[in-house]
Amino acid sequence: MNRITRTLSALSLAVLPLVSVVAQADDEDTIAYRKHIMKTLDEQTNAIGMILSGVIPADNLQLHMDAIATTAAMALRSFEPNVPGGDAKPEVWSNWEDFSARMADFEKKTANMARVAREEGPENAGELAIEALDCKSCHEVYNSKRSDDE
Amino acid sequence: MNRITRTLSALSLAVLPLVSVVAQADDEDTIAYRKHIMKTLDEQTNAIGMILSGVIPADNLQLHMDAIATTAAMALRSFEPNVPGGDAKPEVWSNWEDFSARMADFEKKTANMARVAREEGPENAGELAIEALDCKSCHEVYNSKRSDDE
Repeated sequence: MNRITRTLSALSLAVLPLVSVVAQADDEDTIAYRKHIMKTLDEQTNAIGMILSGVIPADNLQLHMDAIATTAAMALRSFEPNVPGGDAKPEVWSNWEDFSARMADFEKKTANMARVAREEGPENAGELAIEALDCKSCHEVYNSKRSDDE
Repeated sequence: MNRITRTLSALSLAVLPLVSVVAQADDEDTIAYRKHIMKTLDEQTNAIGMILSGVIPADNLQLHMDAIATTAAMALRSFEPNVPGGDAKPEVWSNWEDFSARMADFEKKTANMARVAREEGPENAGELAIEALDCKSCHEVYNSKRSDDE
């Protein structure tokens, strides 16, 4: 049981209204939180990769695209606190204008991918998926651990 | 670069229509694929836990609930191939009626959580989140690695 799930388990329902107040995250929490988001994107991108490469049936493809679009919509916000660490290079914050523009573009492209999939069938959004999920182009600039292993 | 992203990178756009045919996953692929889904649920549940326990601001709470509901909707299907391995105990398939009922209940509860959050505000869906994200009750029966560490 990790710290968060332990805390969650211990939560009294009476304190739940606290979620609406502004929380003050420490640096460790800030880094852990954005990792949860980026790992979600990684897991879902790998799942879509398995489908697009033909090794897994495409039944869930629309849902994967929806999950990525939803997660992409929260990714930039998780980097707003200027807390270098984890896999994020300091360049995330020193080049914030570029980083945030790339993340906004990622959000826009994944939303379009999911919309086209829903309107025209996910089998017609494969090219959009490949274009939207170009993780490497950002990681090689802003991720300290990922540029060589993907 | 792992096998999937390598394959994805190498995909010719001309073969994309292949995603609509029925893929034949080998056992390793089947296990890797369902792990991507379950890890997504784990990352998103931990993120929600950080918000509900007050260490991270709640700005993304609705999106996390949406992402979990979307992912829960594909989880059961990823276990349909009878391929024990990874963290899944053989009981998943020997007790399929119970396992699939629990997963269907999980899908239903997370969908309800996300719906209530959208209609009444995510700050009013905290109790539903705690009820829906009771991962441990299933893991202690069906997950070989998680019953003691969560």
